[in-house]
Amino acid sequence: MKQRLFTPGPTPVPEETLLELAKPVFYHRSPEFKQILSEVVADLQYVYCTRNPVVPLTCSGTGGMEAALTCTVPTGGKVICLISGRWGERWRNICKAFGFNCISVEVPYGQAVAPAQLAEALKQHPDAVAVCATLCETATGVGNDIAGFGKLVASTPALLIVDAISGLGAMECRCDDWQVDICVSGSQKALMMPPGLAFVSVSDKAAKVMAANPAKVFYLDLKKALAKLKESDTPWTPANTLIRAMRQSLKILRAEGIETIWARHARMAEAARAGMQALGLELFAERPAAGLTVAHVPAGLDASTLLKKLEKQYGLKLAGGQDTLKGKIIRLSHMGHVDQFDVLAALAGLELVLLEMGHPVEPGAAVAAAQRVFAQAVAPVPVASA
Amino acid sequence: MKQRLFTPGPTPVPEETLLELAKPVFYHRSPEFKQILSEVVADLQYVYCTRNPVVPLTCSGTGGMEAALTCTVPTGGKVICLISGRWGERWRNICKAFGFNCISVEVPYGQAVAPAQLAEALKQHPDAVAVCATLCETATGVGNDIAGFGKLVASTPALLIVDAISGLGAMECRCDDWQVDICVSGSQKALMMPPGLAFVSVSDKAAKVMAANPAKVFYLDLKKALAKLKESDTPWTPANTLIRAMRQSLKILRAEGIETIWARHARMAEAARAGMQALGLELFAERPAAGLTVAHVPAGLDASTLLKKLEKQYGLKLAGGQDTLKGKIIRLSHMGHVDQFDVLAALAGLELVLLEMGHPVEPGAAVAAAQRVFAQAVAPVPVASA
Repeated sequence: MKQRLFTPGPTPVPEETLLELAKPVFYHRSPEFKQILSEVVADLQYVYCTRNPVVPLTCSGTGGMEAALTCTVPTGGKVICLISGRWGERWRNICKAFGFNCISVEVPYGQAVAPAQLAEALKQHPDAVAVCATLCETATGVGNDIAGFGKLVASTPALLIVDAISGLGAMECRCDDWQVDICVSGSQKALMMPPGLAFVSVSDKAAKVMAANPAKVFYLDLKKALAKLKESDTPWTPANTLIRAMRQSLKILRAEGIETIWARHARMAEAARAGMQALGLELFAERPAAGLTVAHVPAGLDASTLLKKLEKQYGLKLAGGQDTLKGKIIRLSHMGHVDQFDVLAALAGLELVLLEMGHPVEPGAAVAAAQRVFAQAVAPVPVASA
Repeated sequence: MKQRLFTPGPTPVPEETLLELAKPVFYHRSPEFKQILSEVVADLQYVYCTRNPVVPLTCSGTGGMEAALTCTVPTGGKVICLISGRWGERWRNICKAFGFNCISVEVPYGQAVAPAQLAEALKQHPDAVAVCATLCETATGVGNDIAGFGKLVASTPALLIVDAISGLGAMECRCDDWQVDICVSGSQKALMMPPGLAFVSVSDKAAKVMAANPAKVFYLDLKKALAKLKESDTPWTPANTLIRAMRQSLKILRAEGIETIWARHARMAEAARAGMQALGLELFAERPAAGLTVAHVPAGLDASTLLKKLEKQYGLKLAGGQDTLKGKIIRLSHMGHVDQFDVLAALAGLELVLLEMGHPVEPGAAVAAAQRVFAQAVAPVPVASA
């Protein structure tokens, strides 16, 4: 059976990139690697919309998040964590692990943090050294207003640190225009690669804070990584074959163009929402991100059975909820190497399984609703008469 | 031109494993991944010669070394570092970064640390909480006597922590018999995989120390990783496609058999040494490891030219010296997916380049000397008469 991966990371990887991964291994202290790394960094800067250096780390996104905090925050330092779900909570958990003073600004699952909440927190805590936010809260499908946060943080001494792991390359994220100091991403989401790499952009403001901070770090030392990056090198053995393959995925991204990519994801998200609503499903996120669509599981239906049927009968691998949301939501990722026809496939499968499970569904309603969204992007071209 | 990789990491990867890397990406929170991880851990235990759990980490070997120390040593804790080269120095550098009290036991480059030196250090520092050693000092080609260290450390409260990154799978390393508490390895050496994964075995003694140590760790938290490993899971998104490919390389290792692999490497090392000596090269390591052979560059010859000629004219990629040894030595790795005929190729290329550079060489001397070593492993079989 043909398999389609709709989990919010890992996501499908283009065949051209998979073939790069199968190429023979090469030595990493070589002009060849320096050339590859410099191309990858330049293309990441393009995707990040930044002129700041973007450091590659061999680790998952969580390692990049840890590096961002431990390299910049002194012991006991105050960190405002904007929390709209499990991934926002990860910021708090990292703070706890390293003895930082975490000020939590929390909203219920499904909602986004309002810039006004951050403004209030900054007023109460002018000594905060960092503000941690989440571009796309993958646990709930919410997108947060990073531009709004950036305007508030820029005028303070604090750094704006953003987890853009599952948002970067799927939705608008203009690191320089939005004054993001440290932006963390991961290879396995909209950047169309397997997991194993994290990327961290570092602004001048952040670099100055790091230089003055006597951090207890080694493997995840961004200061050391920044210094090595100047020579297109890394402090430790990098996952060099992943970086070589990353170059391929970034070439594909760059050829499509970042704004076109954002528009494609926005359209897929709108279509997925329209399709889900046509199935009578209630959407979960009040300010939805572009990379995934999250819906409540209808009352009386077993989420686990629904997901298993999609996978076993139709090869459609969606994700369920995590932690307290387990069994309550389904998550359809459409980020990265995914197009409108993949979204139609997911909705069509969902229709069929809901029908089979006795949920009242008009066959074709979801795919038609989605298709109407996709049709809006088509400009009619007059056909020359014969 | 046909390329042959003889650098001491990354090393050549079998084609079957490369093809695994090109397979479509899959979801990591799945029964499929649990099955793969449990097979990988079982096969790693076989290679490690241990019944202890072996934790996979998405990072390079250095990340595994950091995890071993930060999870077990309290702030200010005393660590005896046995240093015979650059990689032993890495233990010291990690201690410095995290404020541990490093007691250095050093020998000149090219020599191994004697167990008697460790005995003396343990006598002087009975309060040491860890002893850090290096199985194969890749910077110099020296192999250290881990079995000898284990006998001394086992009767103390200290943990024996071994960097076996470039030794494991190339030379004898019996973690349980030798009483190694934490053994760190990396994917990209004798385990025949690209870089990106580290593996860390944890003894009961080490697990107890970790449980009592309030470590400031998060991404590299071995305690959390051990707990997750009980369910064949990981705390953070693992490099799951690397782990799937790792399974393939481990199957190949297991099919050959670990003792046969050690014998193969020992033979290749002996042949490489015989070949180098037949070329008039002076060997560098007094207690050579089985995974690589290191020789002085003859006086008057430029190391960089030598290495470039090998690479550009013959596709043979060897490594030079690092730091203070730059320009002084050449390093021929024969670990992992390398056989006797690859060693002959490397020696043959070395002969040709040395001849071309005017170094007095008898053509065929090196390959013949190596071949005589390989011939010793051939038991004559009587041929049935017609």
